[in-house]
Amino acid sequence: MASNLQKWSAELVGTFWLTFGGCGSAVLAAAFPQVGIGLLGVSLAFGLTVVTGAYALGPISGGHFNPAVSVGLAVAGRFPAAQLPGYILAQVLGAIAAAALLYVVASGQAGALMGDLATNGFGAHSPGRYSMTAALVVEVVLTAVFLVVILGATAPKAAAGFGGLAIGLCLTLIHLISIPVTNTSVNPARSTGPALFGPAIALEQLWLFWLAPMAGAVLGALLYQGLLADAPEA
Amino acid sequence: MASNLQKWSAELVGTFWLTFGGCGSAVLAAAFPQVGIGLLGVSLAFGLTVVTGAYALGPISGGHFNPAVSVGLAVAGRFPAAQLPGYILAQVLGAIAAAALLYVVASGQAGALMGDLATNGFGAHSPGRYSMTAALVVEVVLTAVFLVVILGATAPKAAAGFGGLAIGLCLTLIHLISIPVTNTSVNPARSTGPALFGPAIALEQLWLFWLAPMAGAVLGALLYQGLLADAPEA
Amino acid sequence: MASNLQKWSAELVGTFWLTFGGCGSAVLAAAFPQVGIGLLGVSLAFGLTVVTGAYALGPISGGHFNPAVSVGLAVAGRFPAAQLPGYILAQVLGAIAAAALLYVVASGQAGALMGDLATNGFGAHSPGRYSMTAALVVEVVLTAVFLVVILGATAPKAAAGFGGLAIGLCLTLIHLISIPVTNTSVNPARSTGPALFGPAIALEQLWLFWLAPMAGAVLGALLYQGLLADAPEA
Amino acid sequence: MASNLQKWSAELVGTFWLTFGGCGSAVLAAAFPQVGIGLLGVSLAFGLTVVTGAYALGPISGGHFNPAVSVGLAVAGRFPAAQLPGYILAQVLGAIAAAALLYVVASGQAGALMGDLATNGFGAHSPGRYSMTAALVVEVVLTAVFLVVILGATAPKAAAGFGGLAIGLCLTLIHLISIPVTNTSVNPARSTGPALFGPAIALEQLWLFWLAPMAGAVLGALLYQGLLADAPEA
Repeated sequence: MASNLQKWSAELVGTFWLTFGGCGSAVLAAAFPQVGIGLLGVSLAFGLTVVTGAYALGPISGGHFNPAVSVGLAVAGRFPAAQLPGYILAQVLGAIAAAALLYVVASGQAGALMGDLATNGFGAHSPGRYSMTAALVVEVVLTAVFLVVILGATAPKAAAGFGGLAIGLCLTLIHLISIPVTNTSVNPARSTGPALFGPAIALEQLWLFWLAPMAGAVLGALLYQGLLADAPEA
Repeated sequence: MASNLQKWSAELVGTFWLTFGGCGSAVLAAAFPQVGIGLLGVSLAFGLTVVTGAYALGPISGGHFNPAVSVGLAVAGRFPAAQLPGYILAQVLGAIAAAALLYVVASGQAGALMGDLATNGFGAHSPGRYSMTAALVVEVVLTAVFLVVILGATAPKAAAGFGGLAIGLCLTLIHLISIPVTNTSVNPARSTGPALFGPAIALEQLWLFWLAPMAGAVLGALLYQGLLADAPEA
Repeated sequence: MASNLQKWSAELVGTFWLTFGGCGSAVLAAAFPQVGIGLLGVSLAFGLTVVTGAYALGPISGGHFNPAVSVGLAVAGRFPAAQLPGYILAQVLGAIAAAALLYVVASGQAGALMGDLATNGFGAHSPGRYSMTAALVVEVVLTAVFLVVILGATAPKAAAGFGGLAIGLCLTLIHLISIPVTNTSVNPARSTGPALFGPAIALEQLWLFWLAPMAGAVLGALLYQGLLADAPEA
Repeated sequence: MASNLQKWSAELVGTFWLTFGGCGSAVLAAAFPQVGIGLLGVSLAFGLTVVTGAYALGPISGGHFNPAVSVGLAVAGRFPAAQLPGYILAQVLGAIAAAALLYVVASGQAGALMGDLATNGFGAHSPGRYSMTAALVVEVVLTAVFLVVILGATAPKAAAGFGGLAIGLCLTLIHLISIPVTNTSVNPARSTGPALFGPAIALEQLWLFWLAPMAGAVLGALLYQGLLADAPEA
């Protein structure tokens, strides 16, 4: 049984990895001339941070790496609510550390324009100039389905061992759909780290990337519990 | 044991996810300037909707998300025919909800040309202008092989747990081959949702995307049962 | 226990799928304007034909889908040599059927230039104009490693169930390396089908794509047995 | 139980495969006109060399294929330090053989400019002209996380069988992030082979690609043991 310190360490390292790997691939490699990895490569990178983190750190902390996931799991009764503050703090710290380190690396390119460290946004700050409504809908819906996948793929009757793969690849899929709309959050910690080092507008819009993923996670958890989950045995 | 309502909910949510995720990636991200995900990203997205849906919802409903799959499984004796109407209705409703929501999101881009919501088509409505004959051949053959893969990968002697991965990645493969021909259906529900919100020609050609996948599914099921499956033990 | 007819059917269907899926993605989708899947998509398609075929048909026939694999397995003592004629005939017939069907589909595009149905070649017929020597080296080495991966990933002490994934993704990797050199064969059946419907030079060069993969498979099998495999228990 | 000769053979073959496959895809296919696989394809190739090698050869040698991994595992107490010289020698020899063979293949293209065989570098020899500091940070951090993933995904309480997939895909992810910075090493053997056949600057900078991955591996192992691993049972 892992101690609280081990759990918090695992969540901090895992969310560091999610943010450094996902945003790092976007900042450093997405638009590399001629052979850049594009949005497909970034989508794969975000998903693989979770695949790798889930198999390596999941047995320690559960492998949330995302405040919305922790909240959704608590709503579904799969995670003790008393653990939320510790987990969320660790996640946010990990994401901030990742953004800081990424800032250092990206600054190591002579004459680099720092871009915006893959911050999330809507309206004028959406990659494809999508409205706030579109951003809200997309972040709520995608986080809700993310929670359904997480809860279903780790349910007692799910195929053992495949959860990490299904959940990580779900994050890849979510990015394949929505990077043009909001640069894809579904994760308030991942939004917070880069926003601290990015343009002012990212920080101004950060509220949406806490509100919408949290609302979506609660919605997904309620949907799963209400319509899909087996009733607990008497 | 899941109730009928739980099964229908799982099929509705899963087919919603298949259509929203697959068509959503096509509409929002495929042709994004410079870094778009292209047909490869769309193929991956469709497959991952099934990978994620299969592990999360498969234990509840079997994870069909496709009327042709339900029919093929019934022909092969793996699914009770009496369940077909409920499953197919749930699948079509899920796909329609996904197309409606995708319409809302895509409309959130200032000055967006709505394109056609990733509808299927042939002839003048085929992405690569392929003939109706080519469309029929491709949809029948690919759905037939899809059913062979589904029946084989979930057979009693198949490797436990890997079915969701094999089946989802089979849908990715099917898209890698055939998006230029028909925009790839092999799934009447996925064709129906977007057709209701797309150009008139999509609705006019919808018959082919019910007929060909259904015929292919029956063909694949008969092929598997006749040539490949073990005789049932006496 | 599957009958011989079931095994031959499985090999025929599986090699049909490998050739139709792999070459089909190359002919129909690789160079689609703007959003084509490229050599990466084709590499993924070839690998996924084996991933899907291995999980669906592997329990029936062993899932070779490739005369060089059957020969290598026989050399390693994993497959009875007496079965080689039946397996290889089924594989070649499956590949020819796939090439014929692909010819029909590709002809369904108005004004289509048929290209060459993804035939293999070297020198003037190599995609990147690589010499015969480079082609020989690449085909021998890659088929040898392919056999090492196949033998290792299906050895008694290998992780159960993961063989199909490792072997299929190995074929993806082989294509990622070598499409520019020979269009990638490592499989005489896959080379034979399209060569019958392609330009004359493909048929003239077909000998290399029987010789080199066969030599590589024997080499890989001997290497694995001699240096890597456990001695059989006394 | 594999003999030392079998273990060294497995490490030699596996590191040959990592270098030939990863660097080969970069040299031969990354920038192929119009349909090249790009940095995404190269990232996938490197990862798949480890996925395939891990399932095929892992049961024989543990599947390190990387001196930094062997050292990190030794620091974490998972690998006997006395075995380090034999393993590292085998790994370096495998990588040199791969680079030599790749040189032969690439020379088989009439009028080929040999490029630099996918050597690693920083500053003037960095693909994106990143500084030595950025290169050091990236190589140390990514190798450290690589070791955390390796140690976590093969820990006693990790999901059985999934280690090879998680570790291989971690290498893909590492490349998705860092090819523009250093061409991605995290593996001194992979850096050494091509450097012997590349431009002089690659050999001059080779020290960094031994130093940084080794430091990162030790750091990752200490981090995992100190903060994440269960205390050994009394």
